[in-house]
Amino acid sequence: MAETTIRFGILGCADIARKLSRAITLSPNATLHAVASRSVDKATAFASANGFPPASKIYGSYEALLDDPDVDAVYVPLPTSLHVHWAVLVAQKKKHLLLEKPVALNAAEFDKIVDACESNGVQLMDGTMWMHHPRTAKMAEFLSDERRFGRLQKVHVLFTYGADPDFLKNDIRVKPDLDALGSLGDIGWYCIRAILWAANFELPKTVIALRDPQLNEAGVILSCGASLYWEDGKSATFHCSFLSNLTMDITAIGTKGSLHVHDFVIPYQEKEASFFAGSESGFNDLVTAWSSEPSKHIVTTELPQEAQMVREFARLVGDIRFKSLKPEKKWPTISRKTQLVVDAVKASIEKGFEAVHIQEQASVAVLSGLDYLKKNLMGRST
Amino acid sequence: MAETTIRFGILGCADIARKLSRAITLSPNATLHAVASRSVDKATAFASANGFPPASKIYGSYEALLDDPDVDAVYVPLPTSLHVHWAVLVAQKKKHLLLEKPVALNAAEFDKIVDACESNGVQLMDGTMWMHHPRTAKMAEFLSDERRFGRLQKVHVLFTYGADPDFLKNDIRVKPDLDALGSLGDIGWYCIRAILWAANFELPKTVIALRDPQLNEAGVILSCGASLYWEDGKSATFHCSFLSNLTMDITAIGTKGSLHVHDFVIPYQEKEASFFAGSESGFNDLVTAWSSEPSKHIVTTELPQEAQMVREFARLVGDIRFKSLKPEKKWPTISRKTQLVVDAVKASIEKGFEAVHIQEQASVAVLSGLDYLKKNLMGRST
Repeated sequence: MAETTIRFGILGCADIARKLSRAITLSPNATLHAVASRSVDKATAFASANGFPPASKIYGSYEALLDDPDVDAVYVPLPTSLHVHWAVLVAQKKKHLLLEKPVALNAAEFDKIVDACESNGVQLMDGTMWMHHPRTAKMAEFLSDERRFGRLQKVHVLFTYGADPDFLKNDIRVKPDLDALGSLGDIGWYCIRAILWAANFELPKTVIALRDPQLNEAGVILSCGASLYWEDGKSATFHCSFLSNLTMDITAIGTKGSLHVHDFVIPYQEKEASFFAGSESGFNDLVTAWSSEPSKHIVTTELPQEAQMVREFARLVGDIRFKSLKPEKKWPTISRKTQLVVDAVKASIEKGFEAVHIQEQASVAVLSGLDYLKKNLMGRST
Repeated sequence: MAETTIRFGILGCADIARKLSRAITLSPNATLHAVASRSVDKATAFASANGFPPASKIYGSYEALLDDPDVDAVYVPLPTSLHVHWAVLVAQKKKHLLLEKPVALNAAEFDKIVDACESNGVQLMDGTMWMHHPRTAKMAEFLSDERRFGRLQKVHVLFTYGADPDFLKNDIRVKPDLDALGSLGDIGWYCIRAILWAANFELPKTVIALRDPQLNEAGVILSCGASLYWEDGKSATFHCSFLSNLTMDITAIGTKGSLHVHDFVIPYQEKEASFFAGSESGFNDLVTAWSSEPSKHIVTTELPQEAQMVREFARLVGDIRFKSLKPEKKWPTISRKTQLVVDAVKASIEKGFEAVHIQEQASVAVLSGLDYLKKNLMGRST
């Protein structure tokens, strides 16, 4: 183990923690050090099944893991309703925090986590893995290329999957006391993040839920969507659902270019991912065919995206531990923006699909359709 | 020329008529017979440049063409505001009518055209070419396959293109007295048709415009979109714009399958077109890749889609002329449904993005967001 290797502890044995354990193992600057569960047997079995080194620690309580001085960083894949409690404690114990998404039940809760991390000088990053795929950087390069893409005008993002009957009855993501944000928190999170990413993390001014949410009997969102509007006229829509076949698309359209990707959250294959980019597309003379087709770009990666994420997180933690650098604020900032939009979508659904204004300070304002029309559209021309 | 060949007359020398002239020439059961323009010189040049046979007729007025007893069918590519006048006259002269889209400025106008066609026993079809591509039939087969696609839940359709400054200043599609429906009529038409097509031509119950329309100084729509809702919970969104790079997508998601097509209106290539279909998609055990990728389906066609359209229209005309069959009502019926949704989107924009209810009789009703919530969502569960 290199001196600069970051030692991870994992709180709980969530299914997603299997994937993260492998990612930590694959990451050259990270190592699995400890896992905690209320059941020592469960934690022992988890460590054994997920490549923990023989010297790893097994703890029968989360507190005990947080008291281990050899734990540098903690991965928290607990149900969302438990995030604020445990994430704050992780920070107070001076452990760096890799926090599963959605980061909290709302931005006010997340702000407590951010405050705890800032006052304890620890790095905070959420578990949005696709952000770290080299394909994502390549796509961002295309979107920011004025010559090829122009100015962003419209983004549409979809993430749906067909949950089985057992999931829809028993999974934590349909339980109001565990992951109360349902599909909005679980997969709408990715849609909103993708929209913000395409918009260079500029927050929209207004969010309006689409009128097709489906809730379960406990009121948890199984399916929903929204439209988002920026002051400069660009806009976005998304849809997330537990009730449809697996689909994960980003479509971003600019004045000069178009981007399509169909597997943005989890690539079809681990080591090779693609996207389609079209620029200044047009037709032949008789408009019977296109003059050029969008081109397919293939990006390979030796490390899967979740290991890229762990490596980047561990690099930042190493910079703090070994080079006395400050925590990188970019990651909690974009987590918070994502959560603000999640909150706005939820508020819009609860207010009968009214327009919700996003303010950085996490409060929302509601505006009627006709007022909106008067304020935003009258006299606007190109 | 076979006895059952249908002889076409064309009203005007619109740019799109060049494509249709070629399609008529390519279609085995149709022939170019006449073209009319207020300028005989222009019509002569058009006929000469577009493969009209030497015996073709050149007329200096639309009326004169309609009085030619050898014209069986008339193609009308005039500006939308002129449709109702000329289309009704075509029918009254007992000519079969191939009418460019949008079919009229509103459904009430279109009903006059339908009435004229019905009372004169002539076939009516609109010029939505992609409906006739064999790929469209293949995609419809997938969407209607309960085993592979399941039940339709969500459709998203995009059609945008980057109009140049000259178009945005001078084209008939930005002029309130010519094509007053702007981008909604020109390309939103295709989006709405695609949504209805995916929904097996069931009309949505409610339409709400997205809050991002862009109008020019004369009030003509350059860019807009809407969300559409059906009683059974399925929904759709679309966006159409003259202000973005060329993009034309249908994304349809069912309980068991997903469909993607990126060139639905005009295929990338004339003779070969593709789409992507995924069924019961899922992940590998660690959720680091998909268990199977959607498959690419390639459909070849000897005749381009616009010639397929002409052939189908001429076949129906031939059935009426030579076999005394009745006109096929399917085509005017789906034209009318498309127009009804166009009208609803326009009404919703004008009413400040209120929900507009679609009724077959072309009237609209407005419902507030909270009323909508109460009536449609409270207590709905899966």
